[in-house]
Amino acid sequence: MYRTHTCGELNLGYRNIDVTLSGWVQRSRNLGGMTFIDLRDRYGITQLVFDLDTDSQLCMKAREMGREFVIQVSGKVRERSSKNPKMPTGEIEIEVGKLNVLNPSSLPPFTIEDESDGGEELRMKYRYLDLRRNPMKKNLELRHRMAVEIRKYLDEQSFLEIETPMMIRSTPEGARDFVVPSRMNPGEFYALPQSPQIFKQLLMVAGFDKYFQIVRCFRDEDLRADRQPEFTQVDCEMSFAGQEDVLNTFEGLARHLFYKIKNISINEPFPRLTFRDAIEQYGTDKPDIRFGMKLVEISDLVKGYDFPVFENAGYTGGIVAENCASYTRKQLDQLTGYVKRPQIGAGGMVYVRYNSDGTIKSSVDKFYDNQALRKWIEKTGARPGDLLLILSGERTRTQTALSELRLEMSRQLDVVNQDDYAPLWVIDFPLFEWDEETNRFYAMHHPFTSPRHEDISLLDSDPASVRAYAYDLVINGVEIGGGSVRIHDENLQKKMFEKLGFTDEQARKQFGFLMDAFHYGAPPHAGVAFGFDRWVAVFSGSGSIRDVIAFPKNNSGRDLMSDSPSTITGEQLRELGLQIRGR
Amino acid sequence: MYRTHTCGELNLGYRNIDVTLSGWVQRSRNLGGMTFIDLRDRYGITQLVFDLDTDSQLCMKAREMGREFVIQVSGKVRERSSKNPKMPTGEIEIEVGKLNVLNPSSLPPFTIEDESDGGEELRMKYRYLDLRRNPMKKNLELRHRMAVEIRKYLDEQSFLEIETPMMIRSTPEGARDFVVPSRMNPGEFYALPQSPQIFKQLLMVAGFDKYFQIVRCFRDEDLRADRQPEFTQVDCEMSFAGQEDVLNTFEGLARHLFYKIKNISINEPFPRLTFRDAIEQYGTDKPDIRFGMKLVEISDLVKGYDFPVFENAGYTGGIVAENCASYTRKQLDQLTGYVKRPQIGAGGMVYVRYNSDGTIKSSVDKFYDNQALRKWIEKTGARPGDLLLILSGERTRTQTALSELRLEMSRQLDVVNQDDYAPLWVIDFPLFEWDEETNRFYAMHHPFTSPRHEDISLLDSDPASVRAYAYDLVINGVEIGGGSVRIHDENLQKKMFEKLGFTDEQARKQFGFLMDAFHYGAPPHAGVAFGFDRWVAVFSGSGSIRDVIAFPKNNSGRDLMSDSPSTITGEQLRELGLQIRGR
Repeated sequence: MYRTHTCGELNLGYRNIDVTLSGWVQRSRNLGGMTFIDLRDRYGITQLVFDLDTDSQLCMKAREMGREFVIQVSGKVRERSSKNPKMPTGEIEIEVGKLNVLNPSSLPPFTIEDESDGGEELRMKYRYLDLRRNPMKKNLELRHRMAVEIRKYLDEQSFLEIETPMMIRSTPEGARDFVVPSRMNPGEFYALPQSPQIFKQLLMVAGFDKYFQIVRCFRDEDLRADRQPEFTQVDCEMSFAGQEDVLNTFEGLARHLFYKIKNISINEPFPRLTFRDAIEQYGTDKPDIRFGMKLVEISDLVKGYDFPVFENAGYTGGIVAENCASYTRKQLDQLTGYVKRPQIGAGGMVYVRYNSDGTIKSSVDKFYDNQALRKWIEKTGARPGDLLLILSGERTRTQTALSELRLEMSRQLDVVNQDDYAPLWVIDFPLFEWDEETNRFYAMHHPFTSPRHEDISLLDSDPASVRAYAYDLVINGVEIGGGSVRIHDENLQKKMFEKLGFTDEQARKQFGFLMDAFHYGAPPHAGVAFGFDRWVAVFSGSGSIRDVIAFPKNNSGRDLMSDSPSTITGEQLRELGLQIRGR
Repeated sequence: MYRTHTCGELNLGYRNIDVTLSGWVQRSRNLGGMTFIDLRDRYGITQLVFDLDTDSQLCMKAREMGREFVIQVSGKVRERSSKNPKMPTGEIEIEVGKLNVLNPSSLPPFTIEDESDGGEELRMKYRYLDLRRNPMKKNLELRHRMAVEIRKYLDEQSFLEIETPMMIRSTPEGARDFVVPSRMNPGEFYALPQSPQIFKQLLMVAGFDKYFQIVRCFRDEDLRADRQPEFTQVDCEMSFAGQEDVLNTFEGLARHLFYKIKNISINEPFPRLTFRDAIEQYGTDKPDIRFGMKLVEISDLVKGYDFPVFENAGYTGGIVAENCASYTRKQLDQLTGYVKRPQIGAGGMVYVRYNSDGTIKSSVDKFYDNQALRKWIEKTGARPGDLLLILSGERTRTQTALSELRLEMSRQLDVVNQDDYAPLWVIDFPLFEWDEETNRFYAMHHPFTSPRHEDISLLDSDPASVRAYAYDLVINGVEIGGGSVRIHDENLQKKMFEKLGFTDEQARKQFGFLMDAFHYGAPPHAGVAFGFDRWVAVFSGSGSIRDVIAFPKNNSGRDLMSDSPSTITGEQLRELGLQIRGR
């Protein structure tokens, strides 16, 4: 037996008990004739003490134990003379009688502390050491706990977890598939699923009513910040259910997680915002509603003053930064620089200081007199002492830029309590989005998404304005998940494919087996999928999903630890009937 | 709202209540002026009744509902005149007032009944219809329930479920990897994991103590019966744990599942059998111990009688078929045919009838007199009325063939109650197995498996006899899982690689990052992995794992439903930097 107890459980209740512990040497120090070792395992840290007078040989041996050595000790629990009230085991220490080195350790390339001295690349290469650090350990424990609670809630709601295949048919629509060559079927490939979408719909056709799965998904994208080629989804689908059923069921799930994981009771229904309102008020479909500072459009107030920038703009609008009238020139220049960064792409920024004394000063005084500016102030609701920040240009881009400016101001003004959580449903997403490049409509969610009933008549006359039964769950400005009611009517599905520019043949080739299935009694159904990594990251307070994934890949899709991907042997390639192009 | 209740919950307690149900038309029949429809959903079947007199239009509409139409009905719950005590809803029916067709259905290509008229291929192609059948539904429900209980038990034992990557480094040792070309790293490939072995060991190095994961694994093998290219494993690992800890912990898991899923309390410890004893007594390392009929070696009794077959055999042994002395010539010929099949490969079979009157008659009377045969009878413990079946030849092959014969006899004699379950640990597996073809030792379990301490000294002198800390869980003759204590000592691991014929360089190339990790304080650890599909199949009584997988592949690794794998576009290939060989 390697241990009788863990390093996290002993306290004064165990006084004078003989125990055996195993763990890692966190640190050791010599004080006069005594040697102290902090022994660490998953559960905590326990102080070991060796007395040179009592057993000099043992104490000398203890002094040889380097950082991260794995040791086993036996001894008696005793009360500490100087207690540490911050540690659960801080009242006791172990008077060691026996020390056994289970495995020595080389000196780790960075410190195993809450704040490590290792850079990200080094910590990724030695991920198994990085994971020993408390914050990483806590993240994976949180992830486990969240998965447990998700499964518990959904099981109680009669959902069945059903595993769907990982090696499926490749469908070129959408993001790029990762593919897997088939040795038994040379020249043919499986694809790794971008989501189990089709399979979960087939499970509805099969009558499984309430399905979920915590499942790995894959997307071969050029990795932006905080994307991973493989990620985990909480994938769900319900039959004989509409939008309201899905929202209620999964609002219940979110509520359950808030309560069980964060100890937060949310009693009110989650607010709902239409896509249109979200864009208008926040400039984004995933607003952080923990603070106000809403966008206010003033397009109609700014025209007719010969200011060409505003005159020709599709949209002019602003936000009110409370109590910022006193922002310095430098601060304002920095903000202008912020919105002009290529990622945000505004052409410039206009400001209006509404000073505490009631006077008004703007960067466009040349064009707008006090009376004009007062109208802006009135419309935006600015009060004396506030600063009005205004962007202008093409509508969507400007709203997006204002949204970024709003977030930046919330950081500068520190208006958000990081322990607050504000969940929100965004609903009524458009069914289609227009792609300028290919000059066609794409499904905003996916091609099986149902239009709202009252908008079906617009499918021909005004497709761009058709709203879908599609919804997103947003928490603190992060899109946690989304879903839709699916089309179960064959004719409507055909219409949808037609609008998306699929020929019958293309539709058949890609989705034929799903369309076939729909001939045999497909029930009305709807679903949702949550980004599990993101949800855990939001609950953990981590900035990156990499911090909540045990073995993530970097931005080039590489695992720095195993140095993967890697070349394979010629024999492997031959068996697969493949060769590397140009060799 | 599509329904107020499910089709499985209504009974007399709901009499006179207005309800709305949705589901599939299982069958319909007209009796005089009445039309009855059995409406099916995931939860059961409810009888609907339409009365031609009351509402002729509605009744006529009901008569148009074909099999598998999806309909929604509203009506009143009323007591049935002729009750069906076999159905939970058999006391009531719905007097329908409103009928709404949610989706019509084409005539399904096979009947959706417990015993379908569809062949396997057809049912695979229309898997979503096959899954509507009760036995398939029950299997997936069982699978869900087992996963729930596994997670519950392990969570209570402080195990953390940690997700490991699906796109990992390819290691050519072992079975073939499925590989995934990397677009971002042209010419390089990920592999899909055959198991998370290395990652779970790294998690132990990272200090995660008790890990598990219900995880998809992949193996590109030529598919034998009941293998799938992707399968699900319950993968587990523990630190500061030895063989005894693992066996106790997971015997607890098995006990928990027996109790929660099958309502079977097993109070005694699971029997343990060494690999050597298993082979000797049953001819296999996964014996079905629900019945006796053990193998008895009689090699020493059969030599010296000038019967060349036995004289030159490495092994001669038999089993006693109770009360089969009266087997006919034809029956015996069939048995001989059975063991001579190429899959079993015995050269022939010798029998001894020990007749009820005490006389003895054998197929080798020419060589063996009554006195000689009596010794066989004594050794094997046959009693009057029994039949002794004897095989002979090379030791291992003959034991294997006898094992098959034993199973065949158990079926013929129907000695096994299919509701009985007999779990068993097989322990002390050999560390190595010798491969004649490549003339080298292979790791029987894997190269990280620890030899038993007392056998380490034999590593050089007699490697073939070294036993490992390796163990299998066997239930009813099916290997449910297996595992081992891992080597955590660097020098022992080096020795192991040396014995397996790895050069330092090869070992570094394949397992370098694991070996690196072991420099930084690897704890002693041990683990186990269970074949989840097989465990569910055993508990479901299904003959095949295909029956407990929602969307399985056939023996050529094809999904007949989506017709996958399939070709991909030239564009996809180009992006991956690949071309099909010979094109």
